[in-house]
Amino acid sequence: MKHIISVLVENQPGVLARVIGLISGRGYNIDSLNVAPTQDVTTSRITMIVPGDDHVLEQVTKQLNKLVDVIKVFDLKQEKYIDRELALVKVCASPKNRSALIELAALFHAENIVVRNKAMIIQMTGTTDAVDNFLELIKPHGIMEVSRTGVIAMGKAEG
Amino acid sequence: MKHIISVLVENQPGVLARVIGLISGRGYNIDSLNVAPTQDVTTSRITMIVPGDDHVLEQVTKQLNKLVDVIKVFDLKQEKYIDRELALVKVCASPKNRSALIELAALFHAENIVVRNKAMIIQMTGTTDAVDNFLELIKPHGIMEVSRTGVIAMGKAEG
Repeated sequence: MKHIISVLVENQPGVLARVIGLISGRGYNIDSLNVAPTQDVTTSRITMIVPGDDHVLEQVTKQLNKLVDVIKVFDLKQEKYIDRELALVKVCASPKNRSALIELAALFHAENIVVRNKAMIIQMTGTTDAVDNFLELIKPHGIMEVSRTGVIAMGKAEG
Repeated sequence: MKHIISVLVENQPGVLARVIGLISGRGYNIDSLNVAPTQDVTTSRITMIVPGDDHVLEQVTKQLNKLVDVIKVFDLKQEKYIDRELALVKVCASPKNRSALIELAALFHAENIVVRNKAMIIQMTGTTDAVDNFLELIKPHGIMEVSRTGVIAMGKAEG
């Protein structure tokens, strides 16, 4: 079981270190994480995928809420949300297999952003499942490098 | 001045905490950061934006290379690279301004992924500049929520 935990924090030095220290210090894993400023430059949003049952989630949330710099903790399992991640993939591409790759990319609404003699970089945005699925399908062509942002998420409710 | 630092690490518990502790422990800021597994499940890639001059970069790189779990540190300023980030934006949208927003989204190759009575969620992938530019343009409509992944990057060179 995996939880998406989204945390709104004050944009202060050391906040990220404290949040991560708190979670990994208790022996919990973090599958993916990202942090960036929001529309308000004084705040940042941290989004994490934390594996574990509801007890783990409850503990993590409780501890996070104790940190002074934490403004709000959202558990996105409880509400309807959408989640997306971005991946850049460098894949072996010669004139032989280039059209097959372009076809696959089009199927996933992915974009070829760099084309070289022997390689291509494809940009793919989607759910984690969709990105995994895409990577699985292009794997036989020879994946040279993958960089993924990890998931960000947002509640569907208005306001 | 900002540096994109990309770090390939062993997928071990506590690695992220050590990497971040090392950087913020020395008083350096991290503007954005993300971490996720690569195509090899035993490794993860951390991408960070660290503001500072070349001296800061050199210090951070030197320290990172001392960590046992760090496989490789890439400074993407030195080579030609592409960088992208993903943003989800919830914006006030009524029948009045919906078409204006759809037009703006189309201009940026952004996608409307959720449409409600009074709000819309738009998914936008691009360079940091492009995302900033897009957010600036939709700001007058009323931004309710922004979630950004922070930058990921990849060298353009083959291999």
